[in-house]
Parts: sequence; C-alpha cells; structure tokens
Amino acid sequence: MTDTAKLEHLKKIATLIRYYALTMTTQAGSGHPTSGMSATELMSGLMFGGIFRCDLDNPKHPNNDRLIFSKGHATPLFYPLYAVAGKVSAEEIMTYRHFGSRLEGHPTMSFPYTEAATGSLGQGLAIGVGIALNGKYLDKLPYMTYILLGDSEMAEGSQWESMQLAAHYKLDNLVAVLDVNRLGQRGETMYGWDLMAYEDRIAAFGWETVIVKDGHDFAEVLAAYEKAMTVTDKPTMIIAHTIKGKGVSLVENQNGWHGKALDKEQLEQALKELGPVDKAVKGEVKKPEDLKPPAVKPAPAGALSYKLGDSLATRKAYGNALKRLYPQFPNLVSLDGEVSNSTYAKTFKDAYPDKFFEMYIAEQNMVGAGLGFATRGKIPFVSTFAAFFSRAFDQVRMSQYTEPNLKFAGSHAGVSIGEDGPSQMGLEDLAMFRSIRDSVVLYPSDAVSTERLVEAALKHHGIVYIRTTRMGTPIRYGAEEEFHIGGSKVLYQSDKDVATVIGAGVTLVEAVAAYEELKKEGLNIRVIDLYSVKPVDTETLLAAAKDTGALITVEDHYLAGGIGEAVLGGLAPNPVKVYRLAVTKKPKSGKPVELLDFEEISRSAIIKLVKQIKQG
Amino acid sequence: MTDTAKLEHLKKIATLIRYYALTMTTQAGSGHPTSGMSATELMSGLMFGGIFRCDLDNPKHPNNDRLIFSKGHATPLFYPLYAVAGKVSAEEIMTYRHFGSRLEGHPTMSFPYTEAATGSLGQGLAIGVGIALNGKYLDKLPYMTYILLGDSEMAEGSQWESMQLAAHYKLDNLVAVLDVNRLGQRGETMYGWDLMAYEDRIAAFGWETVIVKDGHDFAEVLAAYEKAMTVTDKPTMIIAHTIKGKGVSLVENQNGWHGKALDKEQLEQALKELGPVDKAVKGEVKKPEDLKPPAVKPAPAGALSYKLGDSLATRKAYGNALKRLYPQFPNLVSLDGEVSNSTYAKTFKDAYPDKFFEMYIAEQNMVGAGLGFATRGKIPFVSTFAAFFSRAFDQVRMSQYTEPNLKFAGSHAGVSIGEDGPSQMGLEDLAMFRSIRDSVVLYPSDAVSTERLVEAALKHHGIVYIRTTRMGTPIRYGAEEEFHIGGSKVLYQSDKDVATVIGAGVTLVEAVAAYEELKKEGLNIRVIDLYSVKPVDTETLLAAAKDTGALITVEDHYLAGGIGEAVLGGLAPNPVKVYRLAVTKKPKSGKPVELLDFEEISRSAIIKLVKQIKQG
Repeated sequence: MTDTAKLEHLKKIATLIRYYALTMTTQAGSGHPTSGMSATELMSGLMFGGIFRCDLDNPKHPNNDRLIFSKGHATPLFYPLYAVAGKVSAEEIMTYRHFGSRLEGHPTMSFPYTEAATGSLGQGLAIGVGIALNGKYLDKLPYMTYILLGDSEMAEGSQWESMQLAAHYKLDNLVAVLDVNRLGQRGETMYGWDLMAYEDRIAAFGWETVIVKDGHDFAEVLAAYEKAMTVTDKPTMIIAHTIKGKGVSLVENQNGWHGKALDKEQLEQALKELGPVDKAVKGEVKKPEDLKPPAVKPAPAGALSYKLGDSLATRKAYGNALKRLYPQFPNLVSLDGEVSNSTYAKTFKDAYPDKFFEMYIAEQNMVGAGLGFATRGKIPFVSTFAAFFSRAFDQVRMSQYTEPNLKFAGSHAGVSIGEDGPSQMGLEDLAMFRSIRDSVVLYPSDAVSTERLVEAALKHHGIVYIRTTRMGTPIRYGAEEEFHIGGSKVLYQSDKDVATVIGAGVTLVEAVAAYEELKKEGLNIRVIDLYSVKPVDTETLLAAAKDTGALITVEDHYLAGGIGEAVLGGLAPNPVKVYRLAVTKKPKSGKPVELLDFEEISRSAIIKLVKQIKQG
Repeated sequence: MTDTAKLEHLKKIATLIRYYALTMTTQAGSGHPTSGMSATELMSGLMFGGIFRCDLDNPKHPNNDRLIFSKGHATPLFYPLYAVAGKVSAEEIMTYRHFGSRLEGHPTMSFPYTEAATGSLGQGLAIGVGIALNGKYLDKLPYMTYILLGDSEMAEGSQWESMQLAAHYKLDNLVAVLDVNRLGQRGETMYGWDLMAYEDRIAAFGWETVIVKDGHDFAEVLAAYEKAMTVTDKPTMIIAHTIKGKGVSLVENQNGWHGKALDKEQLEQALKELGPVDKAVKGEVKKPEDLKPPAVKPAPAGALSYKLGDSLATRKAYGNALKRLYPQFPNLVSLDGEVSNSTYAKTFKDAYPDKFFEMYIAEQNMVGAGLGFATRGKIPFVSTFAAFFSRAFDQVRMSQYTEPNLKFAGSHAGVSIGEDGPSQMGLEDLAMFRSIRDSVVLYPSDAVSTERLVEAALKHHGIVYIRTTRMGTPIRYGAEEEFHIGGSKVLYQSDKDVATVIGAGVTLVEAVAAYEELKKEGLNIRVIDLYSVKPVDTETLLAAAKDTGALITVEDHYLAGGIGEAVLGGLAPNPVKVYRLAVTKKPKSGKPVELLDFEEISRSAIIKLVKQIKQG
C-alpha cells in the first residue's frame, strides 16, 4: 500500500469505528461514545498502522504487544477496534452493555482481548509497568506495552507513582498515549488543552515526550509511534491534542456529553454527518515474532527446620518461605514497598535479587504492577505493612475483576506492634481483604503454619492475603503438620469444655495461655487456631458450638469485618452464641502486652470472659 | 539579638533537641532519632527563628500558623520543639512511647500541638492543602501552613495530587519543607541527594522552589523561609540537603539506622560527641495577630417538599439536603472528585459556589483536604462514587486518629447502577467504612430519609458515611418522620409474621415488593428499613428475631463486612437465625433489575427464601 492509500484506508477504519461507537451506545442507551471518538485515530493508527504486533488468534501469546485502556470507559472504541480486526461481529457489537454480553460497559475478562479489567481511573499505567518489567527483566521478550490514558485521570496520584517507577526501571518497552481531549466528566480538566503543562510534568518525571498537535491526523500519529520506537532507556509518553466527540458537531468539544448516548434522532443526524461508512473495511494487525520466555524448571523446595517452642515472628517465616519455595515455584516474584527489612521480603531478595522488585513507598503502583506480572503468568507476592495496603484498596478491589493469581502479605498486624502507635497498626486489613468477593485470607500463628500457608497460597490460583505479626510467637507445630485453605486446628479439646476460644496469630498465643491458666483452676476450654479466616472452617466451628455451647473469638483487629464477623457469617444461619473480643478502644503507643491488656484481647480478658460465661 | 547571637542561640537549641532525640529514644528502646536529626535546623529555624507565629498558650487560635509533620515518625524532633518552647518538661520527654504518655510514637491528638495525626506517609500535605484552602478562601486569615516532608514519601502518588491542587488553588499560604536526607527505611531513595530531580518535578507541578544546599546551616534555612514569605499566587517548596542522623558519627548518613534507638553505650558515646548541652535554653515563638474568621450566623433550614410515592434517587436528595441545610450549618463545605453531576454535590455547588471545592479525580488529596478543613472547624462533606473511596482508604483510616467531624457520601452503590459494570459498583464500601472504629454508616432508601440522615450527620460530631443509590426509589416517608443514628424503621409487622426481611437502600424497595406479593398469598413478613447500618438497632432486631424466628438481610454489597455481618455482629452473643442475601456472583453489565435478579437480592429471591424458611 502506498502511504496515501494507507492513510485513506485508516480514515475509512476511523469512520467505521465512530459509526460503531455511536450506534452501539445509542442501542444500549448509555456509554461513553465521545470518549472513544477523541482517541479513534490514536488507537486505530496503533493497531492498524503497522505498529502493534499481536497474534489475535492467540491472545495469550507471550510475545504479543499488550494494549490497556486505562480510560476504561472508552469501550465504544475498544471493542470496535477488534470488530475492524475481524474478531467481533457487527451483530455482537450491538449487544454492548447487555446482560450476558462479552462487551461490558468497561473492559472485563469476559472479552478475550482484555489484558486487565479497567474502569477505575489511573490504574492502567501501573499494570503496564508490571507487564513491561516482566518483558524487560524476566521474560526478556521484545513485546511492547501500550497504555491509553485519559487527561482527567492524570490527576490521580497513582499515575505519578507509575511514572516515576517506569522511569526508574528504564522501561523503554512502555509507551503511554495521553488523549488530551480537554473535558472531564463535569467540565474542563485542570489543564485543558495546555499540552505543555503535561509535557513539563512528564518530562520532569524522566519520560521521553512526543507531542502530537493533531491527534486526528494519522500521519502525525504514526510518526509519533515511530519516534517512540527509537527511544531507549526510558518510557515514552505521546501527548496528543484531541477533540472529545470528534466527528459529530452536536457533541464535538461540548461539555455535558460525557458518558451519554445520543438518542435515536440525534444518532440519525450524527450518522448523516459522518458520511459514507464502509462496513466491510478490515484492519490488519501485524504478528509478533514467535518468541517464548526462557524455560523454567521447578525443583523441589527445601525442608523446614524449625524447633518446637522457639520464638520467631511470622513475618520472618514469611521471608523464609518465599526463599524456600522459590525453586518449586520459579514463577514467584516479590514486590515490596520500601519495607523489605520489616516484612522480611528481604530474605527472598537477598537469595533471588533478580526476582525481587523494589517498588518504593508507592503502594498503588506496587499493587497494579503486581497485577501486571500476574497477567503475564508470574505469581507475585506483594508486601508491605498490613495497614498500608489500605493505600491501594482500589487497586486490590479492581484486581479481582482481572481474576489474577496474586498474593498480598501484610506485616505489622494489630496493636501488638506496640510503641509505634495506631498509624502503623493494621486494624482494618482483615475487613478489607475479606470484602473482596473471591479472596482467601490467611493468618498464621507460628513459623511452621506460615510456611505451609505460603505454600497453600502458591498452589491456589487467586487472590490470597497473608497476615503476619511483628513480634515473635512460639513455634507450635511440627514440620509434618498440614494446613489448608478453609481449615483450622483444634489445639485442645475435652468433653468438659465450657467454651471454645478461637484465636489466630498473636491471639492464639493468648488463647493457649488462657487455656493453661484455666486448666490449673479446673476449667477446660476448647482452643481453635483459625488460621484460615476466609473461607472459615464452618464444620469445626459448628461442632465446637454444639459441644461447648459458646464460642469466643479473640482478634487483634477492629470489631467490624474481622474474625468475629467471619465466624458469625460462616455459621449463619445457624443460631450460635458467639462472644467477641476485639480492638474496641482507641489504640495508642505502649508495649505489646500492655496494649493487648488495654484492648481486652489478652489472656486475662479471655479468662475473665470464660468465667463469666461459665457462671451464666 | 544580633544576627550572630541569634544563630548561636539557635545552635544551642539544635543541640538540646538532638540531646532529647537521642535520650528519649534510647529510654524508649525504639523510635526514629536519625529522622529527627536531619530536620532539626529546618524545624527549629522555623519555630524559633522568628518565622512561625503561634500562640502556644492557645493552640486552637484560628490565626495560628499550622505545622504538620507529614514524616510523622520524626517525633524525636516534634516533641522536643515544644520542650524548647517550654510546653513539655524534660521529665515528660522521657515518657516518650510509654503507655499513657501524651508523647506517642507518631503524633496523635493526645498531644495538644498535633494538628492532625500522621504516620502513614504522604498524607500531611493533603491536610495542609485543606487548612490552606480554608485560610485563603473561607476564614480569610493570614495564617501560614507549614508541612515537613520526608524525601522517601515523595514516592507516594498522594503527594503529587496535593502538589497539583495546591498550585491550582494558588496556595501562597502553604510552605512545604522537603528534608532530603537521602535514606529511606531500607536504603537509598530513588533520587538520593539529587536535589535537582526534586526541583524539576516540583517546579513542573507549579510550585515555587527554594533550594537549601546545607539544611544544617541556620542562616541558609532562615533565608529560605524569608524568601518563601515573598512568594505570591503559588505554594513554595523548600528543598533542603540534609544528613540523616546529623551530629553523631555512628549514625550520620548511615544505612541501617532508620527507626532504631541507640543502646546505652552508643548513647553515651553520642552525647560526648554532641558536646555541652544547655538544658535551660528556651526558644521564643512569635505570636500571631489576634484575628478571627468572619462570623457566621445560622439561620433555619427550609422545609422538605417531597411527594409520597414520587421516585427520586437518594443521590439527588443528598444534593438537595446539602443545599437546604447549609443556612442552619454555615460551616458546611462540600468537596467532590470531578463527579459532582453524578453525586449531586452539584446542587450545593450551584447554590453556594464559594463553599464548594472541586478536587478533581484525586481522591486521596480530597479526603486529606477534607480532614484539613475539619481541623479548622468546618464540616466537610466529601463525595465521590462509593467505589472510589477505596482509593483513599488509608486517608479515611488515618483520619479517625485526628477525631474529626468529617462526612463522606458515596453514590452509585451496588450492582443496581447497571450497565457500567463492576468497576463502578460500590460493593465493599460498607465493609470499608464500618471497619473504622468510631464511624457511623447510614444508608437511606428514599429522599426524605436521606434529607433527615444528612441532618443527623451534621448534628453528630464524628466520621459519618452516607451511601446513596444511582437509580430512583419511591418516596416512602412523610416529612415529619424522624430518623436517627442507630435507629431503624419497622415498615410492616403483624402477629403472623413468618420471618423478618431487613433491607436498606435499593433492597428495601425489593423487600417491600416481596411483602406485597407474599401478602397476596396469605404470608406475612416483617419488613425493617435498616437505614443506620452502624450502629445497628439491636433492640428492634432482637424483638423481630423473637417474634418472627428468622431474620433475612438483603444487601446490594458483597457478603463480607456488609449489612448481614452488621446485623450478626449487633445481635451477638444472642443466637439468632440470620439468612443473608448479598452479592455473591461476579457482577457484570446489565439492567439494574437483571442484576438484582442475577445476584438473588431481588424481590423474587426474597420470596423464594421466605417460602423455604416457612416450609422449614
């Protein structure tokens, strides 16, 4: 094809995409046609202008280029791209936003070309960072990662976390395309069409910048991509001046047309303006080289060598577990937020520095990048203080819709961290991670169970959260003890138990101490290690309730959403007497033991409650 | 005092502060002395060099300058400043980090000079933005706001959200001080001592920058503050090269000394190196002008004018309520994250544009700024989609430790938003806001209850979350109906009720429809509007359980942490039969009614379950 013919062909494609954008949203009665129309040339130029390399018949090919719409609402552009490529029929396009359609309002995994579900703004770039890190440093494949960014979403701090990390890691295989259409949802963005405002910021963050003065001019768009291909040692941002709703005067550059479909009459008018549409026009996408990542060969993991009764913090056992299990799970990677000497991700890092990524104090990007690694088949363990995962809750929340194999490890759980005080205490983390629909939440109490639960997490495909403790706890289990997701351990039981005490992590230590103390006084209690907080072991709990009459949950976590509610929820609708000891007073600085007592989650509080229950 | 005498005096102060930093942490056995020592001159120059104006005998004075340690771990500097000012005794300094001491590991409200609790990095600047916005645009007072920033925390995206908003609002009453000591917790920061890397980024974000080449030279430090005072129309960042652990060779510029106290022997050596300490040296802090904000006079709010049976979305009633109630609560301010036309904060904005702050798509800064307004006596209502508060969970979490009067309103709750799909659905928001220790969580089902609950939120001093719905719901209550925090409404009851159905928001509509359908078939159920999700109305729920045998909760939220667990938790330890209908399948795009059916939280699911229960 000559250059002129190529440009004419691309223009035909752009017209067809706009036709789809308008008609698919009008039939749905909702959606964001104008947000797609601003980036039509940017994305169709990429896909069909000879830049993008992807085997569309094999979307999982490891050397495909990757494309993520961070502005996920631009699905009236996203799906039509694949229609033009012959992968979505004109009929299917008209099922957009219908119940059961693959073509949902924002990209989800029901559509096979979605790399990661988006729609909460400011998250696509972080995922791209993970994918690009994987390409450059792990798989060592020449694939490129492209991210379509909206201008409004540049206000999200998460973007700038990703910007700095992408530059820090010299990700020249990452190209972002900033669609500066001036308009947000309710009006103009902070910088309108001031491309220089973006360029200054982006260049200062260490990126190459390419300005596109007219984002609707295919020649200029293609030249920008070609320039981006030549950049080395840093990521590139293409900053394009575009017009929201481009192509239809009713909506073009108009405020009040975000997230709105045209009505039928308006659509008719718009289609007239669009002119002749070649519905048969097809776009060709280049194929990538058929390259594979280096083969990895699993080898057996080492054995455990802990001594019963020794004291070790579960966070330290977490680090040991990553290091021990890596040979068996060579896709394991570790990401940490500048606290690897506290979470003990450092133990893994020291052993396998190439599989560890320092993500600095930028938790949102860290979680997004973890998700990016997961989309490329790695098993990321993302670690920071339990409290600081709250910084990335939206990223954790969104990650579930990508259905990833992604693990989180939060250290410094609860008031038992001591003197540092409430800002550093993870007291809402169980509530947060339990709220994720399909998540698994594990909370080991000793080194052996930590090792085994990290192993269980590795074997389980999905989102797993592991909660670890700052202070040392006694090693309670032998190396042969088995732990599984959804399980629990009955540590003590008798036929005279007056109640069941359910602990996990540091409160299990208190429960055992209470057991010993009460036993001296002739009172027996059942003690359960609820190491799997989600799912909970309903069967064991029900049996305990039946045998002992009352359950007492004890947790180093706030009342709402924690172990008590996990137990109540797991038992419902069975009516069971459940007493809850949890952190209920405003926490403060102090020694761990003082704080456990203050919050009434220590052995003495357990003993007191058991006696009260016994006395009725 | 001559200049030379002044500098000599300041040096004595710095030595005393370092003495305190070292001794207080060694006695505690923990803490961050080196992080304080890097900023000693920066902060003591500010406080005692004639810059800072504060009536220390009246820390609540509205025209005091404000100082926030965003690097909250630098309390071995923070508290000693007030010791030098005569407000903390040498004895009290030695209670640092003890249980019950005002001097906690990170600044909390137990210390009267703490403006806002910090310790989760990257949050102080946002709070400062709120305080500075208040000074410039609302109170119109000449106070300055100073924020001490660590270099590590500049990796947090939240910082850049605040940077851009501070520049956007031309906050020349905001001065941030960046303590570039090169070292983070586990090693060097991304940029080390490259001050230009910071300056480029900060200047690109629209701030004035002042470089301090030696952050331990009082003359240079004071000159920087004086320059900052002359800047107009933009905020200023003082970027200072400092040395972590400055003054003690053992720890000076050494990795591995973050968050670590010296042992007694090391301390002895360090104090020798420090030289003579004048423990009697005092610092003078300038007093501010005795200015007050403009007086505000409350006036009665307007009456409600809704018509029973009309349909209106509760998010619209939320906007109406803010507008109606403002005259009665003239300290009300509204902040929204670029979705005011969806949350209906726009209704308030259009009526009172001076009391509305557009915070763009930068939720972390928005919540932090809201907290800043709250510390200055305003009642901020912070709004965005329910789902997107997850973006600022850490800021919400931390805000509780400032004990603020702060309100959050989340629209677009649940699958009932329809076609936009899961990324936009608030399905974890109840879990998130319930997990905050002292929070109130309200979930109105119609316009009248929304208005009354916004009123209840205004009257309650504390953190309140209000959940609103996208779609219209019928107006159920008359204008005289009363609603209160911790209450509920029994909509239908009889002595033949076979079960109690508990709904809120959109599921109350379904519960009522189920009631009507079942009644036709001769089956009676009790229906409860659980508009106060936290605290729950335990008494009414217990009575219903007693009368009807079984409770059924129905919620447009994931299972964990939502209404079902709120009810279970509220009833515990009473054994009650509670069945839960909640969002349990992976949500998708579709019509609201299709999605309510798909998730089995619609009238038909309720009817089915009631019949199952009836049949036992």
